Amino acid sequence: MTLVIDCHGHYTTAPAAHNEWRDAQKAAFKAGAEPPPYPSISDDEIRETLEKNQIRLIHERGADMTIFSPRASAMAHHVGDQKVSAAWARVNNDLIQRCVDLYPEIFAGVCMLPQSPAADLRASVEELDRCVNELGFIGCNLNPDPGGGHFNHPPLTDEYWFPIYEKMVELDVPAMIHVSGSCNPGLHATGAFYIAADTIAFMQLIEGDLFGRFPTLRFIIPHGGGAVPYHWGRYRGLADMLKQPSLDSHLMNNVFFDTCVYHQPGIDLLADVIENKNILFGSEMVGAVRGIDPTTGQYFDDTKRYVDALDISDAERRAIFEGNARRVFPRLDAQLTARGL
Amino acid sequence: MTLVIDCHGHYTTAPAAHNEWRDAQKAAFKAGAEPPPYPSISDDEIRETLEKNQIRLIHERGADMTIFSPRASAMAHHVGDQKVSAAWARVNNDLIQRCVDLYPEIFAGVCMLPQSPAADLRASVEELDRCVNELGFIGCNLNPDPGGGHFNHPPLTDEYWFPIYEKMVELDVPAMIHVSGSCNPGLHATGAFYIAADTIAFMQLIEGDLFGRFPTLRFIIPHGGGAVPYHWGRYRGLADMLKQPSLDSHLMNNVFFDTCVYHQPGIDLLADVIENKNILFGSEMVGAVRGIDPTTGQYFDDTKRYVDALDISDAERRAIFEGNARRVFPRLDAQLTARGL
Repeated sequence: MTLVIDCHGHYTTAPAAHNEWRDAQKAAFKAGAEPPPYPSISDDEIRETLEKNQIRLIHERGADMTIFSPRASAMAHHVGDQKVSAAWARVNNDLIQRCVDLYPEIFAGVCMLPQSPAADLRASVEELDRCVNELGFIGCNLNPDPGGGHFNHPPLTDEYWFPIYEKMVELDVPAMIHVSGSCNPGLHATGAFYIAADTIAFMQLIEGDLFGRFPTLRFIIPHGGGAVPYHWGRYRGLADMLKQPSLDSHLMNNVFFDTCVYHQPGIDLLADVIENKNILFGSEMVGAVRGIDPTTGQYFDDTKRYVDALDISDAERRAIFEGNARRVFPRLDAQLTARGL
Repeated sequence: MTLVIDCHGHYTTAPAAHNEWRDAQKAAFKAGAEPPPYPSISDDEIRETLEKNQIRLIHERGADMTIFSPRASAMAHHVGDQKVSAAWARVNNDLIQRCVDLYPEIFAGVCMLPQSPAADLRASVEELDRCVNELGFIGCNLNPDPGGGHFNHPPLTDEYWFPIYEKMVELDVPAMIHVSGSCNPGLHATGAFYIAADTIAFMQLIEGDLFGRFPTLRFIIPHGGGAVPYHWGRYRGLADMLKQPSLDSHLMNNVFFDTCVYHQPGIDLLADVIENKNILFGSEMVGAVRGIDPTTGQYFDDTKRYVDALDISDAERRAIFEGNARRVFPRLDAQLTARGL
């Protein structure tokens, strides 16, 4: 039997008290004061937010588990400073740990990092170490534009990022490349910023040789890889023009795309042009697009249906639903193996 | 017989003297001096650059004509100031006119605009008027991020842009939404900036109601619409979440995508999810990707092959090759009709 592992879920339904604390933290920063203590949130409150939402949908849609991280759009690394970001990341990651502890068979934890535009990555390295070694997390989300929508940070191939890559390699955990909320009025977060950033990240990797330096580093580029599979000919051609190796050897041992593409033709194209070993099932549920597609009568983000409908072999489908996730997240594989799965 | 009209060609092979003048102009700006006079370029020089390149490929690939504009990556609106940009736009547009005058059956002119990051659009309105009324041009390229890669300009729905829209409506000419070179080391021009900007532009249009205000305004979003067709489910779902009308009525009477997608599966998806009335044949030739696809043995940017291979009716193919371009560019239609075509 295949496990169906959703590699891309965020805690978008966190208890109100958690979000209220964030508001208080931001107000305190503005006022030059200390934030109030983090509120007490009961297990029952957490259970309610999950059972009504993510867990209900996981069961309804026939999945088994979700790799779960803090709400991406609320990471908002551009807000405050390093200290604000560190405190916010810590309480978010601790809250994810509580979800995992309450439902260890359903959730595996992925952390947000306390990035901050003007800071180096030391705090992020420390938080990643804590989350993996103390909380049992299996990966992280890395924001390639912590400034929030003006792309002022160096490309992902720049040595600015190397400290976090070194820690990821040491811990053998992957990162999902995932921007957060936009502070740019021209960039809608989930409709423009996310998809643009995914595409930009892939092109940065084409231009450099990051995996020559870090051969075991692994990235998931979410939202079906942004525009990349649709423009796969352009990217193969640009690699050639830039005298880089073919994408297969240059990037595709290290880069993976999820299936957060919300219609059948998109998933069909993804599975057609990208080797199935590079595709991880994901839905970003409950997330960016919550409605029902009038052309199908099904939820846009019920991406399992699209994968089920692919004209591929059972072995390929198992790879997309389970095998690739276990390969990209070895710590998940170890946890599942320990549970006899 | 169908005319095959390529809606997206740039003069990427302009004579060296033209590019050398640009270098001199930039150096003069830096030095606070006046640029040298624009050089004399002979008709033969222009003929040679076109006959060896664009015209040769138009004939080899079985197209008939190209809607031709100055090299997009060299517009570089972020360089210099309004005066620099105005002078550069004028000599570029005049050079396009010379191409059209030399080969009136092969080229139709589209102008670049003298945008400049800190300026309003008055100079652009004047240049568009000159190019259409004096030079016989049929459209313009509008840069949504004249700052060159940090997306600091207001969204396309903002009234900042209204003066150029008013002039476009008055003249009944469309704009291709097209950024230029990137001054952001994280954004490769043709691999990241172009595709990101295309996607961002579409999402800006979803969020607003620009075509409620300008019902006859028409945009071509190039490079196959960026990521949009691949994520068509996401955009339909986001329009729904944002309580906007369906994309069909909200945008798709005014927005068109070209076929600059450099592999068959991408073009297949484009024609599958986007109504064929919204697709214009384009190749961006000689342009972003100049090599041969080793999987097909053909040029990546020979997009006519992909359109020829689509499983669509002859009437639909005629629309993509000719009819839609004549509808989106009424001044082209008038010119062709006057020639008995």
